[in-house]
Amino acid sequence: MINCIDFYQLTMAQVYFLKGLHQQPAVFDYFFRKNPFEGGYTVFAGLEEVLATIETFGFADKDLALLQTQGFDASFIDYLASFQFKGSLYSIREGDLVFPYCPVIRVEGGLMETQLIETMLLNHSNFQSLIATKASRMREAAGNRTLIDFGLRRAQGQGGYAASRAAAIGGFDATSNVAAARDFDLKLSGTMAHAFIQSYSKEIDAFQDFASVWPQQLVFLVDTYNTLESGLPKAIQVAKELESRGQSLAAIRLDSGDLAYLSKEARIILDKAGLRNVKIAVSNQLDEHLIKSLLDQGAPIDIFGVGTSLVTGYPDAALDGVYKLAALNGEPRIKCSEVNAKTTLPHRKQVYRLFDNQGMFWGADYISLFNEGAVEKIHHPFDPLKSLAIEGLHCEPLLHAVFDEGKRLTKPLSIQEIRDFSQSRMALLPSEYKRFLNPHVYKVSLSAHLKSERDRLVLASVEVS
Amino acid sequence: MINCIDFYQLTMAQVYFLKGLHQQPAVFDYFFRKNPFEGGYTVFAGLEEVLATIETFGFADKDLALLQTQGFDASFIDYLASFQFKGSLYSIREGDLVFPYCPVIRVEGGLMETQLIETMLLNHSNFQSLIATKASRMREAAGNRTLIDFGLRRAQGQGGYAASRAAAIGGFDATSNVAAARDFDLKLSGTMAHAFIQSYSKEIDAFQDFASVWPQQLVFLVDTYNTLESGLPKAIQVAKELESRGQSLAAIRLDSGDLAYLSKEARIILDKAGLRNVKIAVSNQLDEHLIKSLLDQGAPIDIFGVGTSLVTGYPDAALDGVYKLAALNGEPRIKCSEVNAKTTLPHRKQVYRLFDNQGMFWGADYISLFNEGAVEKIHHPFDPLKSLAIEGLHCEPLLHAVFDEGKRLTKPLSIQEIRDFSQSRMALLPSEYKRFLNPHVYKVSLSAHLKSERDRLVLASVEVS
Repeated sequence: MINCIDFYQLTMAQVYFLKGLHQQPAVFDYFFRKNPFEGGYTVFAGLEEVLATIETFGFADKDLALLQTQGFDASFIDYLASFQFKGSLYSIREGDLVFPYCPVIRVEGGLMETQLIETMLLNHSNFQSLIATKASRMREAAGNRTLIDFGLRRAQGQGGYAASRAAAIGGFDATSNVAAARDFDLKLSGTMAHAFIQSYSKEIDAFQDFASVWPQQLVFLVDTYNTLESGLPKAIQVAKELESRGQSLAAIRLDSGDLAYLSKEARIILDKAGLRNVKIAVSNQLDEHLIKSLLDQGAPIDIFGVGTSLVTGYPDAALDGVYKLAALNGEPRIKCSEVNAKTTLPHRKQVYRLFDNQGMFWGADYISLFNEGAVEKIHHPFDPLKSLAIEGLHCEPLLHAVFDEGKRLTKPLSIQEIRDFSQSRMALLPSEYKRFLNPHVYKVSLSAHLKSERDRLVLASVEVS
Repeated sequence: MINCIDFYQLTMAQVYFLKGLHQQPAVFDYFFRKNPFEGGYTVFAGLEEVLATIETFGFADKDLALLQTQGFDASFIDYLASFQFKGSLYSIREGDLVFPYCPVIRVEGGLMETQLIETMLLNHSNFQSLIATKASRMREAAGNRTLIDFGLRRAQGQGGYAASRAAAIGGFDATSNVAAARDFDLKLSGTMAHAFIQSYSKEIDAFQDFASVWPQQLVFLVDTYNTLESGLPKAIQVAKELESRGQSLAAIRLDSGDLAYLSKEARIILDKAGLRNVKIAVSNQLDEHLIKSLLDQGAPIDIFGVGTSLVTGYPDAALDGVYKLAALNGEPRIKCSEVNAKTTLPHRKQVYRLFDNQGMFWGADYISLFNEGAVEKIHHPFDPLKSLAIEGLHCEPLLHAVFDEGKRLTKPLSIQEIRDFSQSRMALLPSEYKRFLNPHVYKVSLSAHLKSERDRLVLASVEVS
């Protein structure tokens, strides 16, 4: 399974193997340093792909042939031929809300195997978390209105497939992406392009033909020539014909022009025609800010079709997740940086979430040594003068075993289950953390033990080197 | 091949099929409206994937089973079971420079088949052109220094695979992406992560072990603890040991800190140690602007490793390419918009590039009717007062037949051939169009006939509707 691997993982692996270092017990953390979109939280997604890939991780003949051409040692290639991942993973649940610096996945196993899965784990988790977070922001903006993913045509190559999965986890209701719908059991949506209307001499003929073939869930695209002068009156004419046959038009779709103005005008015209049940769908370069702005202006929109900004995670395009060595042979390991925030956290760790008396998120997670037990105080990661008492607060460990010495422990969840869990967690996050503009900062703190271990190792690092 | 299709292509297709409209001869254009990155040009890439997919386009049993669950008609599903694409494609060559509003690919065939490939064609062409353009800008900034793609871990899911291909077309020398290198015959690059250094008690032991296994193309990562105090002195110590054995260190790599300052200091220290041939590689959040800025400051960098911004096309994340109906049954078709620039160009068309007497690009392409022949004057697409005489200029048609009634006409080219062609075209584009800041606008004009046809159809469009 060489489909998602960086070359340096293989060059390092050969050194470990030939020097007999490959089976040293290692601990790696996956975490990120900044919420995307200048937001206050991140929706974790991509875990299922990580677990499914690890279960079948191995090297095919053509992969081994490639390594031969690159000067790898025959004994190492032989070893890879029967390689299987025998390590363990501890993960925060897919769909949960996660915050900067918290280990989201902890990987334990031999040094070589834990290093080999790095790029695959980062690729899936970084991308799907980015898109699930973007989708979740659009869900926040749209309330209970319908959100549909139309992004595949502008998606980043085959990345569109995982994007549609992650969009559903973040709260989207349906997708135009047929392959993703087939494989992830998503609801499909889509009716007609402008080209369909253009292919008829008369706009009304296009509507009538379409309605005769697809009388259910019927949506007419009304902006091919002139929305208010042509598309909408003709859609109404056909809708009335349908009514007389006991059928109905589900919605009209606007894909250009000022969507606030046009949706308000269209709503008035539809209502006057007695078509109060015909919904208004809009598309065209939407994102969470535009959805919020349209609704703030009172635009009577029922359905939002979102494309490019959703599936590419525009404008960020990537989550900055990293994968760092935290322990080896039972000893802590650290990577120092002149920038404090880039110095890693050593040791095998656990993450706890704090809850208030109403069961809402209290506004802080803390990271401790794995076996540290309850703590009474948590500490700012960099400012030695800041700490918080947490006595009496309920706390919940977030990292759960999902893979044990090569064996998967958890069954795959449906997208619906992951989405439901994610939305249940969103409901526990106070609204000040969900604000688009300058949201409140959710605190990630350290236990006293972890903090003193990190500080000790920073001071010792010049000698270590 | 339902892997890259939007649902509405299938709903429209069923209407066309059941109404007997599916074989009407249609012409579609693929074009985009804005160069990415506020730049002056776009590198076209992705054609090979479009052609390869069309050659094998069809519906598998599991795809047909999905359509049954979605209420499609049995006769239509039967028809799709043996569906093959029998249309024709005319394309600008992969790797050529292309400009807004020019048809880059023209698709001809039955209305249904030409509509079914829309999303696939857009997905490949939009994404790979975005990344090839980004890579080309980095190549402009880096001159003849080495550029390496390190992006897979932050790529958009499986999109990283095509991204590495497109980066090579745009001018990258090597990649860390093993699968892409295997399939596209790219040069692999990559040595060690910080975790490799951290896994040893002493930094120098890590360097020595690595050198003993990989004495060729050896690069030491020197910033794990302290670049100038620890990593570099130890790298030099091992480099001198290697010299005594007739081997050599190829480069050091800096992945943090101020890369201008550190590269200058490192160059002085390496030179003093007699290691003038040891190159300096850098990585860490690079893009074309940072590469240019580092070199403008005289940073003695030989190798740039670029990740996220390359493979995600940050900050744009998408090229806005569209696929629009231009003719049906031999009659022109148009999509109007209140925004002039979004009104489409009707008819089957050809694109010509103009060359000056030295064989350089003159600074304009023009679009004409397919069979229009030579023109003496070209017209601004929207301003009726602007035109240009082009008598005496050499002009070259850009759209070439690549697929004829279901048969592919061209053999796949190697990435090296496409890259070489692309760089030969870049050499013909005057530098004012390559500038990052406010580049000169390359003109795309219309022939008089095409312009008058477009205007006639806009005026008639209300009646058409």
